[in-house]
Amino acid sequence: MTRQTARVTLADVQRPVVGRIDAVATDLRKIIAADFPLIQEVNGHLLQMKGKMLRPTLLLLANQAAAAEDPRCNRLAAVIELIHLATLVHDDSVDHSALRRGMPTINSLFSHQISVIMGDYLYSRAIIELVRLEDVDPLRVLARVTNEMTIGEMRQLGAYDALSFREEDYELLIRSKTASLFSAACECGALRAASETRAALRSYGDALGMAFQIADDLLDYTEPVAVTGKPTGHDLKEHKVTLPLIAALPCFSDGERREAQALFATAEPSDEQVARLSDLVARSGGLDFARARAQEYALKAEAALATLEPSEARDALQGAIIYAVERRR
Amino acid sequence: MTRQTARVTLADVQRPVVGRIDAVATDLRKIIAADFPLIQEVNGHLLQMKGKMLRPTLLLLANQAAAAEDPRCNRLAAVIELIHLATLVHDDSVDHSALRRGMPTINSLFSHQISVIMGDYLYSRAIIELVRLEDVDPLRVLARVTNEMTIGEMRQLGAYDALSFREEDYELLIRSKTASLFSAACECGALRAASETRAALRSYGDALGMAFQIADDLLDYTEPVAVTGKPTGHDLKEHKVTLPLIAALPCFSDGERREAQALFATAEPSDEQVARLSDLVARSGGLDFARARAQEYALKAEAALATLEPSEARDALQGAIIYAVERRR
Repeated sequence: MTRQTARVTLADVQRPVVGRIDAVATDLRKIIAADFPLIQEVNGHLLQMKGKMLRPTLLLLANQAAAAEDPRCNRLAAVIELIHLATLVHDDSVDHSALRRGMPTINSLFSHQISVIMGDYLYSRAIIELVRLEDVDPLRVLARVTNEMTIGEMRQLGAYDALSFREEDYELLIRSKTASLFSAACECGALRAASETRAALRSYGDALGMAFQIADDLLDYTEPVAVTGKPTGHDLKEHKVTLPLIAALPCFSDGERREAQALFATAEPSDEQVARLSDLVARSGGLDFARARAQEYALKAEAALATLEPSEARDALQGAIIYAVERRR
Repeated sequence: MTRQTARVTLADVQRPVVGRIDAVATDLRKIIAADFPLIQEVNGHLLQMKGKMLRPTLLLLANQAAAAEDPRCNRLAAVIELIHLATLVHDDSVDHSALRRGMPTINSLFSHQISVIMGDYLYSRAIIELVRLEDVDPLRVLARVTNEMTIGEMRQLGAYDALSFREEDYELLIRSKTASLFSAACECGALRAASETRAALRSYGDALGMAFQIADDLLDYTEPVAVTGKPTGHDLKEHKVTLPLIAALPCFSDGERREAQALFATAEPSDEQVARLSDLVARSGGLDFARARAQEYALKAEAALATLEPSEARDALQGAIIYAVERRR
């Protein structure tokens, strides 16, 4: 497997907080421990599925960059990952996904029923942990964001006529689906900072999340199967319209547009159909457009960081921008 | 349709707070209003499905009976109904139920996907409303209870060998599934009361909820289809073991036990199979046993009330006990 390395690795980003990330992972394990066997079993699989801990990393880095000591941050970092996990479990159930990061999902390993309940379990555990902090401030940030994420999911389901999905719709969707939690993670690291610092980190998280999701959607067009662990063109197969296609569509000839319509009218498009449309999107400049948009958000994220005092953590947040837009999966 | 009337009607119970119940219903409508069309559409159906407002009624009555003025109670009452609705939406999705109170469920009207997301939407809206009260106390009560309800649902799914389900298992199940929210409703009405009053109302709610659920499970054995709006014997058809069967099983002959086993081994038991087993449960004293257990909980609820000062609201809570155990659906 040949694999091009991004200039900034996740390990680079995590370096200033690597010890704390381990503590957060341990804490997360403790929080979701339950004395009920079926929940324990599902938890075991969930923790294996546990990913890059990107949101906890952002929270801890934001806290250091804000220079506003807050002993609750490790707990908040565990909670933000817990909310992320709860969302993944419900998303996979809603999408009927069989794989997540190359591992079987809870709905495929157990059942749809167990996924629904397990997501509820994880989310209510998250709220319990937040209540224990005896402060409504983090609850305010995180309740808003989880509600926003559900609205984002509804947007995705509500997009009946996929090909009329506009760039504004896409931006609303990825902001609620991805950027909101990135933004909340950064804001939660700065709860005890001055309000301008808090606002700057919130904006940074929002822009970073937008860039991250655009880059993620690009990978679906550009990464070969061996690297992603899921087939390239997965989004097209599932009739999900992302920025590259939205940008390419207006440049399509009538014939090309009909081809796109045909794919979206086919319940299970063939690999060949998907490959042809992917190629068309690339040739019509859809990928370049999306890359440019990701770069714009990267610059916004950078501008927000520039208002903070220089620090090792700020450098790492700077690195996270490069990681977000240049990474392979 | 001949219909026997319970000695205490829901209208009797609600009389002292009837004006406030209307205000709560209006508030509920406002809380879940969203500017997203698909959510609005689902909400419309949900509000039609909206039931008896029993939990808000209990909260408001508990508040009056506790004589501890709390201006947040109307909002809390709306939130408790909202949490209840969120739970129903996910329950119906998990159970693949097509009907609820004779009305089509969200999963049957829309889709499983929309049910999952809509439940998450409603629950996160509930948390947002609680955060607005700027006090973690109600959040503490309600976060615990929603977590308990998810554990209850897991218990139900985890009960693989239905016929080895014991009375203790059943009690744990209905406590987490039903009594916990009744108890939380009553406790939330008494957040500003003395701690003994708060504890008494919490106990009352717990015992009332237990009696209510046992009576509900009895109705599945005793009510004809025309009244329930769902077929009698529905639980048996879905292989759900409730108290009447648990109590009857030890009295079964070997042949009768095999008959029960056969029903539970049949994916879709026939109406005749269900009718025969129901009859067997009745003849073996299962219904009488469950009625006696419901009565015990009714007495516990009464004892908890007896510690409060006499009031119109206390009388109504007393009436709620009779309503819970004697009602038709």
